[in-house]
Order: sequence, then C-alpha cells, then structure tokens
Amino acid sequence: MNATGIDVPKTSSTFGPWFSQVVSRSEMIDYYDVLGCYILRPWSYLTWEEIQNYVNARIKRMGVKNSYFPLFVSSDALRKEEDHVEGFSAEVAWVTRVGQKRLEKPIAIRPTSETVMYPLMAKWIRFHRDLPLKLNQWSNVVRWEFKHPTPFIRSREFLWQEGHTAHATKEGAEKEVLEVLDLYASVYEELLACPVIKGRKTEREKFAGAVYTTTVEAFVPTNGRGVQGATSHYLGQNFSRLFKIEFQDDTRHDDGTSAKQHFVWQNSWGLTTRSIGVMVMVHGDDKGLVMPPRVAPVQVVFVPIYFSNADENQRINDAVEAYAGALSEADVRCETDLRTLYTPGWKYNHWELKGVPIRIEIGPRDLRRNQVTGCRRDTGVKFTLAQDDVVQGTLDMLETIQRDMFAKAKADCDARLKTCLTWAEFMVLVNQGNRVLVPFCEEEQCEDQVKERSRIEAENVDEDDESAAALADRGDFEMLTGSAKSLCIPFAQPDLPASSVCFACAHPAKSWTMFGRSY
Amino acid sequence: MNATGIDVPKTSSTFGPWFSQVVSRSEMIDYYDVLGCYILRPWSYLTWEEIQNYVNARIKRMGVKNSYFPLFVSSDALRKEEDHVEGFSAEVAWVTRVGQKRLEKPIAIRPTSETVMYPLMAKWIRFHRDLPLKLNQWSNVVRWEFKHPTPFIRSREFLWQEGHTAHATKEGAEKEVLEVLDLYASVYEELLACPVIKGRKTEREKFAGAVYTTTVEAFVPTNGRGVQGATSHYLGQNFSRLFKIEFQDDTRHDDGTSAKQHFVWQNSWGLTTRSIGVMVMVHGDDKGLVMPPRVAPVQVVFVPIYFSNADENQRINDAVEAYAGALSEADVRCETDLRTLYTPGWKYNHWELKGVPIRIEIGPRDLRRNQVTGCRRDTGVKFTLAQDDVVQGTLDMLETIQRDMFAKAKADCDARLKTCLTWAEFMVLVNQGNRVLVPFCEEEQCEDQVKERSRIEAENVDEDDESAAALADRGDFEMLTGSAKSLCIPFAQPDLPASSVCFACAHPAKSWTMFGRSY
Repeated sequence: MNATGIDVPKTSSTFGPWFSQVVSRSEMIDYYDVLGCYILRPWSYLTWEEIQNYVNARIKRMGVKNSYFPLFVSSDALRKEEDHVEGFSAEVAWVTRVGQKRLEKPIAIRPTSETVMYPLMAKWIRFHRDLPLKLNQWSNVVRWEFKHPTPFIRSREFLWQEGHTAHATKEGAEKEVLEVLDLYASVYEELLACPVIKGRKTEREKFAGAVYTTTVEAFVPTNGRGVQGATSHYLGQNFSRLFKIEFQDDTRHDDGTSAKQHFVWQNSWGLTTRSIGVMVMVHGDDKGLVMPPRVAPVQVVFVPIYFSNADENQRINDAVEAYAGALSEADVRCETDLRTLYTPGWKYNHWELKGVPIRIEIGPRDLRRNQVTGCRRDTGVKFTLAQDDVVQGTLDMLETIQRDMFAKAKADCDARLKTCLTWAEFMVLVNQGNRVLVPFCEEEQCEDQVKERSRIEAENVDEDDESAAALADRGDFEMLTGSAKSLCIPFAQPDLPASSVCFACAHPAKSWTMFGRSY
Repeated sequence: MNATGIDVPKTSSTFGPWFSQVVSRSEMIDYYDVLGCYILRPWSYLTWEEIQNYVNARIKRMGVKNSYFPLFVSSDALRKEEDHVEGFSAEVAWVTRVGQKRLEKPIAIRPTSETVMYPLMAKWIRFHRDLPLKLNQWSNVVRWEFKHPTPFIRSREFLWQEGHTAHATKEGAEKEVLEVLDLYASVYEELLACPVIKGRKTEREKFAGAVYTTTVEAFVPTNGRGVQGATSHYLGQNFSRLFKIEFQDDTRHDDGTSAKQHFVWQNSWGLTTRSIGVMVMVHGDDKGLVMPPRVAPVQVVFVPIYFSNADENQRINDAVEAYAGALSEADVRCETDLRTLYTPGWKYNHWELKGVPIRIEIGPRDLRRNQVTGCRRDTGVKFTLAQDDVVQGTLDMLETIQRDMFAKAKADCDARLKTCLTWAEFMVLVNQGNRVLVPFCEEEQCEDQVKERSRIEAENVDEDDESAAALADRGDFEMLTGSAKSLCIPFAQPDLPASSVCFACAHPAKSWTMFGRSY
C-alpha cells in the first residue's frame, strides 16, 4: 500500500526532503540504480504529454516540423565548435565499446543536437527558397552533471524538445527567438500556472556557442531559489560559418553581379521535463502535489460516501458513474474511486497527495438533495453543485482554480523580487530568499567575483544582521547556502538612474540584472 | 534543388539501390556520419506521429499508461536474465567514460527495457489489486548490429514503443498478447495497407527470455523477402522469478491458510519505425513513394496550371486556396504548390516521388467548368470532381485508395505464399521469391541446418533448374542470396496430413511453418 501522505512540511529548511517525498509518494517519479536517472511514471508523464500537445500545436502553426536525429555524435562533429564543445565536454558520456569489441573511435551521446543537425542543414540548404528551415525533435539527451542530481530539475538524462531553425535574415531569426520565448512563457504561465520573468542571460551564463540566450526564469518562493525555465538561443552565424550552412540568394544584385552566397542565421531552443519539477515546487503544499487543472492527469476524482444501506450505496455508485460519464463527455479527465477497501478519509489523503484539482463527494444527503459536494485542492474550500450544473460548474471551477493558482504564485513571486543599489543591501535581500535587481556592469570577471563573494558571505552570515539571524532562527538555512548568480537581464527594465554604478564593482552599470540563488 | 525522380526501377535485382534512392530522395531519411544511424526527416516522422496517435488511442483504451524509463542499464540489472542478456550482449553499446573520467562500472544503453523496468515493477507490485500493471514507453533503443544496416529496417538506433505488462493470471497475460498482436496487425493492414500473417515464432527465433513470441510477418513481393513486422511476447514467469515480482492474493484459502505470494505473469511487446520501411518497400514504385492516405504527411497536393493571363492565374490561385481551405476544414492534410519557379511537370514528378495519394490540378478549363481534375498516385488514373463534390469526393477517393492499395498488396503477397512437402520443392519455391509453408519438426537443430543448407544451395543454384535459371536470367539475383529461415508458425494452419514428416529432416512434423528469405 502506498503512503497516504508526506511527513515533512514544505518549509525552506525542509524543502529538499519535502520535494523528494512529494515527487516519489505521489507516484510521479521513482529512483533508479543509475545515479541521476529517474523514472517518469504515468502520473508525471501524462503532464509531459499535455505539454507536448500544447507545444506541438503552437510550433506547427509556426511552420516547425518534427523529425528525429541520432542519439550519437561523432567526435569530429562534436569538436567542430570550440566554445560549444568546451561548454559541454566535462558532461559528455562516451560509448567506447560494443559487446566485447572496442570501437575505433569513441562516440558521444548527444548533450544537445547542434553538432548532430547542422552538418545535415548544410546539405539541405542551397537556395534562398529553402529557408526558413524549422525543425524540432522530442528526444532524450544526456548531460552527466556532477552536481547533486534532483528529480526533474537536474538529471543526467532528461527529455526535452529542441528546435533548430535557419533563416535568411538576422531579423527573421531574432524575431523567432522571441516568438519561441513567448511560447515558453505561456507553457509556464498558462499551463503550469507558474509566473516567469523573460530576459537575456549574461555573457557568463549564455549557451555555449550562442550570440545571446533568452530565458524564462521561474522562482520557488519557499526556498527563494530561481530556476531557469527554458531558453531560446540566437546563434547568429556562429555555427553556420563552421558547418558551412550557406544559401544562394535568388536575385541579381544592383552591381550587376549574379547570385551571392550567404551564411544562414540560426536559433536553437529547448524546453525540458524540468518544467514539471518547477510546477511541483511552486504549487505543492504540506499535503503533497497541487496540480494545475490544465496539466493534471486527473482533473476530477469522485469519492462516494457509503453508508450501511446497500441499495443506497448502489444508487450512489450509479450517480458517480453518471456524473463521471457526463464530465468525460465534456473532455474532463475523471477518475472514480469506488474501492471498498479504503475509507473516504484515506481516499481524500491519497488524491490530495496526488494533487487532483477537484474532489467530488457523493453521499446519501447529496443524493437526496440532487447535488454534489466539491472540494478544491488548491484552497481546501468546499462547494456544492446542483445536479443540472455539475458539468458546467465543474468546467468553470477548473478554470477558476487554474487562474487562482497562477494569481497566488504570481503574488508570492512578486513579493520576493527586490531592487537595491549596493552590495550590503544585496546580500541581506538574497539571504532573505529574494531575487534582486541590481545595476550591473555585465562583466564576466565581476560576475565570477559575485559568485565567489556571495558564497563566502553566506557561510559567515553576520549574526548581528537581524534579518539573516531571524531566518536562521526559523531554520531557513537553505536560503543561505550556495552562490548567488545572475539569473537574467529582464526585458522589463526599471529606469536606470544616470549615475548608477555596478552594485558589485562600482564600474559603470549597463543594466538592471536579476541575481539570486538558483538551481 | 532536389532530384525530381529516381533512376533505378523497382525490380528484385535493383531493389537495394531503388530503396536507398526512394527513402533519401523523397526526403524521408538522410544518411549520417555514424554508420547505421539515420535521420528521420519530417516526411517520415509525420508518418510515425500518425502511427503513434493510432497506437496511443488503442492502448489507452486497454488501460495502458505511458511513462519513461532511463536510457541506461546497470550491468548488474542487464545480466540478471541469462538467456535474455545472451540474446543481446554482442549488440550492446557501453558507456565507459564521461568527459575525461573513466566510470567505475560501465553502463549499458538499453537494447530493450525488460531489465530496466522489472526491478521497479517488483517494487510497485505488492497486492492482487495492483494488477494488471500496464506500462508503455515511446523511446529510442540501440542494438549495434553488425549486419548490413538498412534505413528503417535495420538501424543501430531505432524508435519504438515498448509495452510491458504484469498480470495476476496466465490467462490474463496470454489474452493480452493476442490483443496487442491484433493491434499490430491493424497498424500494418488498416494504416499502412500492408498485409501481414499472424503467428508464433519458433523456439529458435523467439525473443530471448520469452516463453513464446507472437509476430505479424510482412512481405515484400518485389524481392520475395519476409520482414518481421512487430512482436508481442509472452514472458510467463521467466522474468518475474528473477526480478522477484510477486503479489499477495486477497483471499483466504480453503485450506485455512492466509494470503499467498505469487509471481506475476508478464508480456512485452514492441512496434518500431521499421514499419515505415515495410510500407515503402511494399507500395513504392518506379516513380518513388506511394503513401497510403491514412499515414501520408500530405494527402492531397494542389498544382495550379498557369497560363499567360495574370488575372486568370490569380483566379486559379484563389480557387486552389478555397478548395484547400475547405479540405483542411474536413481534416484532410493539404498542400498547395504555388511556386512559379517550377513547371507543372516538375511538380508532378516531385509529389509523385514523395508519394502524395492525390494530386489535384486546376487550370483555366477546370475553372470554366467548375470542376477539378484529380490524379491517383497509386494507379495514375485521372478523375474529375464537380465543384460541389470536391470535399466529399476527395474523402471518398482517399478511402478508395487506402482500400485498393491494401487489396493490391494482399493479392501480390498471397500469390507468393506456397505450400510444399519436400526439400527439393522448397528450394525451388524459395529461390523464386516465395514464402513457403512446410511441415516442420520445430527442432532448433533442424532449423539451423535449414539455414545452412539453403544458403549453400542458393549459392550453387542448379543451372538446370528452369525456374531458378529463369530468375537469374531476369536478373533477380537478390532472391537467391542469404539463408532461408523460419518466419513464423501461422495461427491459420492448413490441415496437416496425418502422415506428414518434416520437409527437412524427415522426423515427425509438428506444424506447418512458414519459411523464407527475410530481412
């Protein structure tokens, strides 16, 4: 029998154990004997399928076509882009042997597919009319990180979609980068009910080989950690020059010369199963998962309340089946829990742990009154629906829950976004579990120093600092560990005062950059 | 510019080059710098998505849930089932290094996921009520075969779905094996319009570790080769005993003892991207692909026939867009080829190469007559549809084409299924490119000898044998190469005469077994 609840609360000091229990006891994931690899059980995979359906519909409208490229990368191809390979080389898994036979040349497992796809793009693209070329694949990739693995958030193998596109113009490519970023923002905000901040990564944090990286940054209020949600990279001609991805324009030129060769402008963009982990972290509570209705594997669970009268119990079951049938007809994902081995209380705990948005109870009194009693997972608030209103009332309530969950998460995240000008203020705010907007010089060296200094200062927290002491007193240690780093340079910039200098090095500031501790 | 056709005919002697050209020039696949790995371009991946949708809908109705298990298998888990690991060990790729770091224990890439999933099933299954457990995943697997790789048909990495189920009873498991086999038969017959023969594999050819393997066997009439279409394995308790997958029954027993432990009964079943290759081989012709409508990425292509009158051309384009819009509304996958750089003739060749089931031409005369001119890819026959009938007429024609393609393939395959009693007859029939039903002892040793003898006899074809000589004369060499092996013991058995002896060893025959050359 599965556990019917979790036994650690969702606090900053117990966040790790809480998360482990929630994802495993809700049957989202299970652990595996290869460290850093997890099993995505149906309860999380169904959410992934909802995300896939949503993304597929949107990218197909953009003219993107799905395809599949090999898992393996030859070492020659992988090594072609130096910055790129350097960014990944420590994490690349190599196949060196088949059966008992040693391979002449080791073969890498893709950590991402730029170097897999781009030699082919060079072959397929010849003329202006071959552009734009927009491909996507849903696949697994392997990045053998040595940091502490965390289900969904950091795993050595993960699932994602990776889009790779080639354009005739810089403008066409840059426009798409943002179109995709908007799609990612809507996956988080519309589907997963998790607010994100859109922005650009600093040079230090951008994708290896990109001109720049745009990102949607999510946030976990409970432990004050940022999480990179998904990224859309503008690659410019960095890869096309190396892989010789060129096209010939169609037109005669003014100077009388004929068609010319140009390198294409490229993007790559990816969204991973990490998104499911973010959703769990943002919405879960002391009782377990809280699933946003749009991605919940089960949106409504029916729990009959039996009494000793067998006839009445049969009528209750009949009512449950009838309502569930009507809701299924309306495309609501329903489950009826008619098991007689378990008490209603056990079932409540069980489905709360699994985060089902609405529980509908039907007992003798409901039958007599021609109504059902609903209970919202997100707020615990009960409601009744008259018989004739069960379908529409449930559909409306699912929408309400989706909206309310987003609004609550948005308020929680917004309350933890602070602005300051100096290092001293910054460290206090970060140690309180905030993301902090600061004027920043954007220099890589300065950013490295921020990482280093914030780690040391956190370890030697000033005991006279009231706010930090208060946190420590409440046991909120997790907020104090690890370096603060830049999360992004938000597109929505406060007006930077003309006099501003970098919060860390006092050189002229270039932008308001958002820093914080993060996954 | 892509080639607009292929330059080798589809004959048995040129079958290999024909197939290579068709799959690459139609833009289904491309080659890759890791041998035996292929790129599935959108033109084939879209067919795979249609197959996925079809299979998902069916297996979800069966109560199967999708999930995702890791790519990696620890060597300990892989080695647990001896017969199983022996069946795959020579083909298993091993990761031994990450970055510059040697792994303490090499990790295998899954060739199939029994040994990945079953330790987890042992954890999840405790009681009778946990059964049946029905899981499926869509994933990539790696089998590093050293035989000559062929796109779709034999590749070192391939995509598939693998279902893994556990049942409380032998009967429950065995019923499902056949239910899944019926699903596979309908994927081939209903979607891909390829006839298959259902049956059981011999002991020699069954899945490593299974009690028995059921199969749908497809056939390529042009070169007389069988192709295993998909397999559904009954594993019995072979794996559950090793992985200790046990459940406790709920009932008190008559002898007064309480709940007992039992090993579960298991199945595994898989359908791969090979199915796309079979479809190409069966239906393709000298002009390229012929796609069955239900899985064609584009079902109808519109080709406008322009003349010199610009106004008229505009009216033609308007008509094309209007018809295509109406068809799209009716869920027909349409494409309009309005490119002015290409002649209609070039476009005909192009879309014939890509196998689009229906081409609709619209020229000035069609406009005047309020009609369109259609052309079937499968037969080349033209037809006209009145303006008001374009949508329904096209829908009907797509159904007709689907049905006719299956009927034609069925007739071609049936004509090549022969029955005989003796080795001499058998070799003549096999060398003519037939599949042959023979009375067979089902002994593994005898089967090995059949393989060996048929290979040798093929290489020394008796020049006096008229039928073989005739084949050689026509250049049909491909039929004569390689061993004949057992394909399956068909469920539909001819009545075996009581006196029958094995066609190869003259010991008593157990069944009519189908033999032939195969992929």
